[in-house]
Amino acid sequence: MDGKKILGSNIAKEFIKELQKTIYENKIDVKLVTFLANDDPAAEKYAEVTAKACAETGVKYELRKINREILEDAIIEANNDPMIHGILVYYPVFGGGHDQYIQNCVNPAKDVEGLCHTYRFNMYNNRRFLNGVESLKSIIPCTPLAVVKILEYCNVYDMNKSYGNHLSDKIITIINRSEVVGRPLAALCANDGAKVYSIDIGDILEFDRGHNLQLPKYRVHDSDKRLEDILPISDVVVTGVPNLKYKVSTDLLKPGVIAINFSSCMNFEDNVVSRASIFVPAIGKVTTTMLQRNLLRLKKHQMNWSIKYQNLTDQ
Amino acid sequence: MDGKKILGSNIAKEFIKELQKTIYENKIDVKLVTFLANDDPAAEKYAEVTAKACAETGVKYELRKINREILEDAIIEANNDPMIHGILVYYPVFGGGHDQYIQNCVNPAKDVEGLCHTYRFNMYNNRRFLNGVESLKSIIPCTPLAVVKILEYCNVYDMNKSYGNHLSDKIITIINRSEVVGRPLAALCANDGAKVYSIDIGDILEFDRGHNLQLPKYRVHDSDKRLEDILPISDVVVTGVPNLKYKVSTDLLKPGVIAINFSSCMNFEDNVVSRASIFVPAIGKVTTTMLQRNLLRLKKHQMNWSIKYQNLTDQ
Repeated sequence: MDGKKILGSNIAKEFIKELQKTIYENKIDVKLVTFLANDDPAAEKYAEVTAKACAETGVKYELRKINREILEDAIIEANNDPMIHGILVYYPVFGGGHDQYIQNCVNPAKDVEGLCHTYRFNMYNNRRFLNGVESLKSIIPCTPLAVVKILEYCNVYDMNKSYGNHLSDKIITIINRSEVVGRPLAALCANDGAKVYSIDIGDILEFDRGHNLQLPKYRVHDSDKRLEDILPISDVVVTGVPNLKYKVSTDLLKPGVIAINFSSCMNFEDNVVSRASIFVPAIGKVTTTMLQRNLLRLKKHQMNWSIKYQNLTDQ
Repeated sequence: MDGKKILGSNIAKEFIKELQKTIYENKIDVKLVTFLANDDPAAEKYAEVTAKACAETGVKYELRKINREILEDAIIEANNDPMIHGILVYYPVFGGGHDQYIQNCVNPAKDVEGLCHTYRFNMYNNRRFLNGVESLKSIIPCTPLAVVKILEYCNVYDMNKSYGNHLSDKIITIINRSEVVGRPLAALCANDGAKVYSIDIGDILEFDRGHNLQLPKYRVHDSDKRLEDILPISDVVVTGVPNLKYKVSTDLLKPGVIAINFSSCMNFEDNVVSRASIFVPAIGKVTTTMLQRNLLRLKKHQMNWSIKYQNLTDQ
């Protein structure tokens, strides 16, 4: 029996309704400013998609097209503008370490992408609140967060288990170990109890919380397994390989697997639904929704936060 | 007439004496902990050199060889250990963005390398003090700082000019635009008034403070010049190309130029002193000295700093 192909837009639907309701009922005035500082058609496309997603929910959206040489100053200006609640940069701009520097120039109080060090550090270290204050939930990078929400939608999370153990009997393979998606996603899933195989070009790592989940956060170790050993035992396979030729062989998948592709290229074969119970071909619509959830959370935090967070980039 | 070859050890000599005097006379008890989490022979060599440099001045030095999978936790432990005043990691460990994440895991209060975002941001934005407090000088990344100190030693800095304009009539070419050395060095020199040509594989950028140095910090723009136009007008040429075959042609250099190589490969030809007035073949000895200057500054700051800096990685 063939599995179901589920579009990201279907998964996003309930979240979008919730956003619309919150914004409409509370008459929330919230503004996202985005910076496009490259000529990358993929970035322009993502800008269009974000604009459309914001129009749907009532979030004010402004696109600022600028020369990359003035990007840092433009971000600092937006950090200091109280009329702006969230800031998003369409990457890549310079590439490599310079882009990571730019990610840290965005004030954490306005970082809807969750890519600044404060949020990454909290995520890897399984710290779910800012300064340990329970009313101040930390921000999770929006693309890995989108995958987590898809796993919840597909009932991979077992909510009958205790907090932090919702994925305790699951094996998840993630084919991508980028700093923006693959590595944070591996940490998130392992911190929730899963056994994660993280596949990169050079090696395979295992992320888990150890025997009987006794560790407070995940640990990492080298794996002696091969991809062809791992795929047949994986309950979930998430792919993010930016290569048109890369395909996961359907024959290797566990029957009933949940298959999620977040690459702009399709990393599964056409017949993947013959083996998968659920196949999600793209997650962009869920990501733009998570971006807005992060924005609303930050707007709420901004009203509570001390000068410490407001001026974190001003040291 | 041939120019002078000056060894980094000669330039470092006065700084080392000063460090010895400060530590001895004030009976300063200061400890640097370093982490070696790779098998890179270059990193092991650098570890040896740092150990030797610390032994010379009286800085306590401890090398911790660990598996890279536990590096982040080991750094957090050292952040929280009041007996440790400075932390240094021998890179590369994971490479790419993961290493930049690790750089930001080091508490700014103990970051002798000056590679965390707080110090980078201050440097690019020409903010010379922490929180604008004049007693709290910011930390400058130690390798670019070493080059600046070499330029001071060679009298490239004109101390008769006003603060921030000491390099105002100088043209400096930097062949390297890494996030760790080339780009910060270009910003430092431009913020002090120089016209800087920053050469990378893909393009040439100009860093300067504009006409009549009216800008509060440098700006960047694309250059329409070629390397063969730039070298003959450059007062200083700094190279950092990690390629044994790459050589700057002596014939293109301005007579009297100051030539500084910070690459592990020699980027100048054997006859460079036939054209240069000063040639510095390697800067490692100056870098390890600057590392210790940063350490002493941080030890002093640690006694003044509020909980804000102590716990910056604890958010």
